[in-house]
Order: sequence, then C-alpha cells, then structure tokens
Amino acid sequence: MSLFITFEGPDGSGKSTQIGLVAEYLQQGGYQVYCTREPGGTAIGNQIRAVLHDVDNTAMTSRAEILLYSASRAQLVEQIILPHLAAGHIVLCDRYADSTYAYQGYGRQLDFDTLQAITGFATQNLKPDLTIYLDLEVEKGLQRKVAANTAGQGEWNRMDQLELEFHQRVRQGYLEMARTEPERWLVVDATASVADINRTICRRVEEKINRSNA
Amino acid sequence: MSLFITFEGPDGSGKSTQIGLVAEYLQQGGYQVYCTREPGGTAIGNQIRAVLHDVDNTAMTSRAEILLYSASRAQLVEQIILPHLAAGHIVLCDRYADSTYAYQGYGRQLDFDTLQAITGFATQNLKPDLTIYLDLEVEKGLQRKVAANTAGQGEWNRMDQLELEFHQRVRQGYLEMARTEPERWLVVDATASVADINRTICRRVEEKINRSNA
Repeated sequence: MSLFITFEGPDGSGKSTQIGLVAEYLQQGGYQVYCTREPGGTAIGNQIRAVLHDVDNTAMTSRAEILLYSASRAQLVEQIILPHLAAGHIVLCDRYADSTYAYQGYGRQLDFDTLQAITGFATQNLKPDLTIYLDLEVEKGLQRKVAANTAGQGEWNRMDQLELEFHQRVRQGYLEMARTEPERWLVVDATASVADINRTICRRVEEKINRSNA
Repeated sequence: MSLFITFEGPDGSGKSTQIGLVAEYLQQGGYQVYCTREPGGTAIGNQIRAVLHDVDNTAMTSRAEILLYSASRAQLVEQIILPHLAAGHIVLCDRYADSTYAYQGYGRQLDFDTLQAITGFATQNLKPDLTIYLDLEVEKGLQRKVAANTAGQGEWNRMDQLELEFHQRVRQGYLEMARTEPERWLVVDATASVADINRTICRRVEEKINRSNA
C-alpha cells in the first residue's frame, strides 16, 4: 500500500504543522512515512532551492524560475518519491506540481498547455493520490501585512493592489482545481484550530487508505 | 542589423577559438559584438552551471539536467541575448538549443516533442540566424581517449562501446539538423587548420550580413 499525499496553500497556512501531525498519526498506525518538500528534498534540489531563494537573484525571469522549480521536482520524483512509493511507503510532500499551476498558471497567467508539458516531463506524470489545500482568505492576510508594513498608516498602494489580485487568482485557481477533481482534493479552512484541521485531514487519509486496501 | 550566431560541436572541436576569431573579425568591421555561452552567461546561469558541473552531483537525473540547461537558457535569452539583438548587436553563443536536441534528443533518445515544448518555452522561440557546426569524426577522438586511458593496453570495453554509439548518434543528429535547415547551418570540418576554418566561417557570416542588409 503506497500513497502520495501533497499539501498546498499559502505560506503561513500551516502546511508543515499539519504534515508533522499526519506523519505522526500514520507512523503510530504502523505505516512507513517519508516527508519531503519542494523545492528541495534532495542534495541537488537543495542547490536549486538556494538559487531560487538567493535574494540577490532579482533578475530571475519567470521562465527560468519555472524551469528551476521543475528541475528540483524532476530530481525529487525520480530519486526520492518514486522509490519510496515502490517500497510501499506513504510520501507526504510540502508543495508539488499544483503550486506551479496555481502560481504560474492562474497567478501569472502563463500558458497552461506549456506548464502541463513541462510538469508532465518533470514528474513522469506522477500525480498525487490526495492533495490537501489549506485555504485562507487573501484579503485579510494582505490587509494585515499592509497595516504592519506602513506602521499604522494603512495606505493601500498599487503594488498591494497587484499583489492582492495575484493572490486572489492563485486562490481561485486552487479552488477551481479542487472542484474539477474532488476525489483527489480536500479543501480545509486554514483558520480552524490545528487539532480540527488535523482531524479532518486524518479522516480523509484513512478513507483513501481503506479504499486502496479494498 | 542584428544577428544571432551559435556554435555547436563536441568539446575540443575548437568552438571558443573560432568564436574569438569571428568576434575579432566582426569588431574590426565596425560591428558591436557580444560573446556568451551555455550553460551560464548570466549570474543566475553561472549558479546553474555550477550545479550542472558539480562532480558530486552524480545522482542528477536526465530530466533534471535538461530542465537546468533550459533554465540557464531562459535566463540568458531574456536577460542578455534579446536586449543585445534589440540594440542591433551581433551575438555569438557557444552552444544553444541545438545542443539539447543533439545530446538529449538524438543522443539519449528522449521525446522530441517534449524537448521542443521545453526549448520553445525557454527561448521564447528565438532561433539562431546562423549555426556553425564544427564536425569531428567520433571514432578517432574516442579511440585516442581510450588509448590514453588504458595506458597503451588499448582495451575496448562496454562503456566505451556505449559512449561511442552515443556520440555517433549526437553527430548524426547534428548532421541531420544541418541537412534539414541548410540556410541556417554551416558544417565545417574541425580537422582543418584554424585559419581555414575561420575563413570559411567569416565568408558565411558576411553572406548573412549582406543578405540581412539587402
């Protein structure tokens, strides 16, 4: 019984907390669990992650960025995820291909067919069995950020407006993908308590395991 | 008058020597010339080059490798090549997309449609105006290498055989691409003298310039 579960959602939505709790829950149930993340998860992927996150790399083009994420993903799939799945383990991954569709496809509005060709190549068409989306309203998060940045002045500038619209497209993209493939996706309200979210996720994971074993 | 000229051929075929001589020739003719190379050519590209050339990265998958080359290429095209062409310069590039087709397509026999989709994305469909292929017979080069490696024993093992066949496919790939697009390619015998090769290349470059100005 192998299972590939990915976690999506904005930074700060609680993905890593939930991955830790789900891993613990499954290990107590006797399953072999492997936790990983994108970009990174391999020595080569971590070198790529360093290039992606280098604050001096402000000149990086969006095409180079997508190809670097995909390179890290290709290495992770072949070197780590596929062997663990072949060994019957449960793999939990913090972000995966749906991040590319959400941020570059819906967010930056790049051509979907091209993104799919690159992603299919990078992942060898490996799709998750289950994807957890930790959903957060965009406006509240950004308004809080703006309030903090402008130290109480609460000004709303053009960049904030663009950023708001970008993150709204990303969120709508995630929700649309979840609607299109409801059997693969679980959308969870990220403002619920950590324990409640964890219960919702573990219940769905159990269902998947039972169906795989049936 | 802008012109994008790429140089292809196996390592040691004399690409950089010829690029230097062509640059000199064109600059004496009053042209603005920019020389670059793949992978690399930008700060981000050089970081990617370091990942590709790191001798500890033996686990790198061929998919990750292609995506890293393409990421470096995407950055180079957008940040360097397109602006120089827009400014009316002549760009000389040591390797470009045809290396991917030759080594990964013909050599490793990966799917051409996928390579084309990735390459079209990375290059924004920018094709060279002229591609110089420095052609060298594979057998002689490899036999010399084997003779050197085995210190006179001259043994021919399975790896050498595989390597020979790989490089023969790469060479045949280059020659096939050159046959398909003769107006873009110039195939030069890399065993000729440096001066003879340079004369042949410069004559063809002049023709291209005259046709562009016509």
